[in-house]
Amino acid sequence: MSDQHRRRRAALAERVAAAADADAVLITRLVNVRYLTGLDSSNAALLVHADGAVVLCTDSRYAGTARRVCPELELVVERPTAETLTTRAAGTGVRRLAFEAHAITVEKHTALAALEDGLDLRPAGRLVEEQRLVKDEDELALLRQACAISDRAFAALLPALAPGTTEREAAIALERHMVDLGAERPAFETIVASGPNGAIPHHRPGDRELARGDLVTFDFGALYGGYHADMTRTVALGEPAGWQRDLYDLVLRAQLAGIAAAVPEAETKAVDAAAREVIEDAGHGEDFPHGLGHGVGLEIHEAPLMGYDKTGKLMDRVPITAEPGVYLAGRGGVRIEDTLVVRGSGPELLTETTKDLLVL
Amino acid sequence: MSDQHRRRRAALAERVAAAADADAVLITRLVNVRYLTGLDSSNAALLVHADGAVVLCTDSRYAGTARRVCPELELVVERPTAETLTTRAAGTGVRRLAFEAHAITVEKHTALAALEDGLDLRPAGRLVEEQRLVKDEDELALLRQACAISDRAFAALLPALAPGTTEREAAIALERHMVDLGAERPAFETIVASGPNGAIPHHRPGDRELARGDLVTFDFGALYGGYHADMTRTVALGEPAGWQRDLYDLVLRAQLAGIAAAVPEAETKAVDAAAREVIEDAGHGEDFPHGLGHGVGLEIHEAPLMGYDKTGKLMDRVPITAEPGVYLAGRGGVRIEDTLVVRGSGPELLTETTKDLLVL
Repeated sequence: MSDQHRRRRAALAERVAAAADADAVLITRLVNVRYLTGLDSSNAALLVHADGAVVLCTDSRYAGTARRVCPELELVVERPTAETLTTRAAGTGVRRLAFEAHAITVEKHTALAALEDGLDLRPAGRLVEEQRLVKDEDELALLRQACAISDRAFAALLPALAPGTTEREAAIALERHMVDLGAERPAFETIVASGPNGAIPHHRPGDRELARGDLVTFDFGALYGGYHADMTRTVALGEPAGWQRDLYDLVLRAQLAGIAAAVPEAETKAVDAAAREVIEDAGHGEDFPHGLGHGVGLEIHEAPLMGYDKTGKLMDRVPITAEPGVYLAGRGGVRIEDTLVVRGSGPELLTETTKDLLVL
Repeated sequence: MSDQHRRRRAALAERVAAAADADAVLITRLVNVRYLTGLDSSNAALLVHADGAVVLCTDSRYAGTARRVCPELELVVERPTAETLTTRAAGTGVRRLAFEAHAITVEKHTALAALEDGLDLRPAGRLVEEQRLVKDEDELALLRQACAISDRAFAALLPALAPGTTEREAAIALERHMVDLGAERPAFETIVASGPNGAIPHHRPGDRELARGDLVTFDFGALYGGYHADMTRTVALGEPAGWQRDLYDLVLRAQLAGIAAAVPEAETKAVDAAAREVIEDAGHGEDFPHGLGHGVGLEIHEAPLMGYDKTGKLMDRVPITAEPGVYLAGRGGVRIEDTLVVRGSGPELLTETTKDLLVL
């Protein structure tokens, strides 16, 4: 993806002067460094000048990888990466250095500000995150594969689910299927919430055994090539009661309404509202206490966030989740979630597992 | 551990005035919130007044858990946790509010500073990290269990290692053994570095197949009750060559020298030097490019850091790693690491797997 990374850096360089009113920008958020270089490191920073010159700094542990992954970049090998590049910037004529105010601590900022007299450090805003919003086709291919692995892992898990299996056992089995099918690792901690635990949106799988009569919610995803799949399915163990089927149908209708509204130029709060109104009209507005979804990519939660109080517009090639849920304390819950890509031609679903209620 | 958490909060409260020159301190680093409350949340903050009053804030996803884990605490349920507690502090008479400058971004600080006229926000230093340095026996018991799981997982892995196994397969198998033996999850990404890859200290396990004649380094650990084990063993596949055995013996002598020097009141750089001199005397100083070790606990890397350029002293009941390594580019490497507790009565090794060179 070296060409792709070069294009991303060039696009950022073009915005340094106009969007950040600076001579250069110091990128210290590691996921942003990765986006711009391909280097996945726990200690790295990138200096991007408005004129297009770029310097990467990482420590000796990652130097070999950096030379392999982005051989075209000037590389400085030092452990204090932000400090090294700040000094470097000042030494090469930068006077206004933009920095990622959402990724630099107050302590680090104090240290950087003390390094160079006359260097004007100024908040850059979320320049790289803005760029990351719309994915290129290389990224979507990785995300598609992450979702395909997730679908296949869930299919592999289903035959093994039975009364007596604990939530934790099911979660571990699902994660192992993902890894066996090619995931780097799970994209986040898998949720398995059975019976009354299904009423807890972020339940941690525990020792409760699945039982006949349960609704069981699985929220999981594979990480592949750095990209995060995110999907949720709720299944029934044994023939569902009337209220369980009604709840499922309600959440599914809400989810489909949300997906249908996810078109380019749609306001994120309108997309949330499209799903939320279905649930509110059924008298369960209070039981849907979170937003409809979020962007996914190099992070499991990234822009755009979609909730009743979120602003912004969807665009072509923005991957998002749609994940309404209804949670009935003490009884259980249903959540249904897909990862999909907003497209002018209509949403492209990346998670393809059936949304018919599975009865095991 | 509720009593233990109450003691920790009381100890912090006593230092707010003297160490931070403040009326209260806002704790936003999540691992510190966990240390002081027992609550493991992705969104929480804690306000600790100098007079001992404490308020916890988390969002609705974690409210139920918070009420169960720390029922004695006043709880505010809001999503913007730092903002909510800052406003709360100002409203209850706090004028000087200390904050964790190493955990608050410039952006967040700007937002907090804009909330309340006349509130004096001041950097607190690493108050909680300082407290966390010396572990109580409850913590050491969890760490001991994390290390025991790691030992047992490695023992379970060894019989399955054979030429043809890939590094990645071995890493996955080792991680699965840890989880099957009771780990929450691996404490960090497992390293399996075989043959020439052993020369890369932070090698990521890949598709290389283990082969006869390899030295293979395993760096891994279990997470248990929030505490991180960290251990490394290097084994030989088939009878080792002379240089391999010599390298192993050298690193082992260095490691034992480092451990012997890890006594209360020892300067961390002296402990590092005790191991480093052994390696330097053998002419391999350049091939040991990292520090001797680091503290472990609720984080995999925490204070004290032990390197040639690190300052500080060891104390009774401080758990650390001792992990010298020698890396020969293109040929391979050896690293040997234990987690141990500094004790007046002599170091307590928590990882107990043999350090005789294992020949498989």
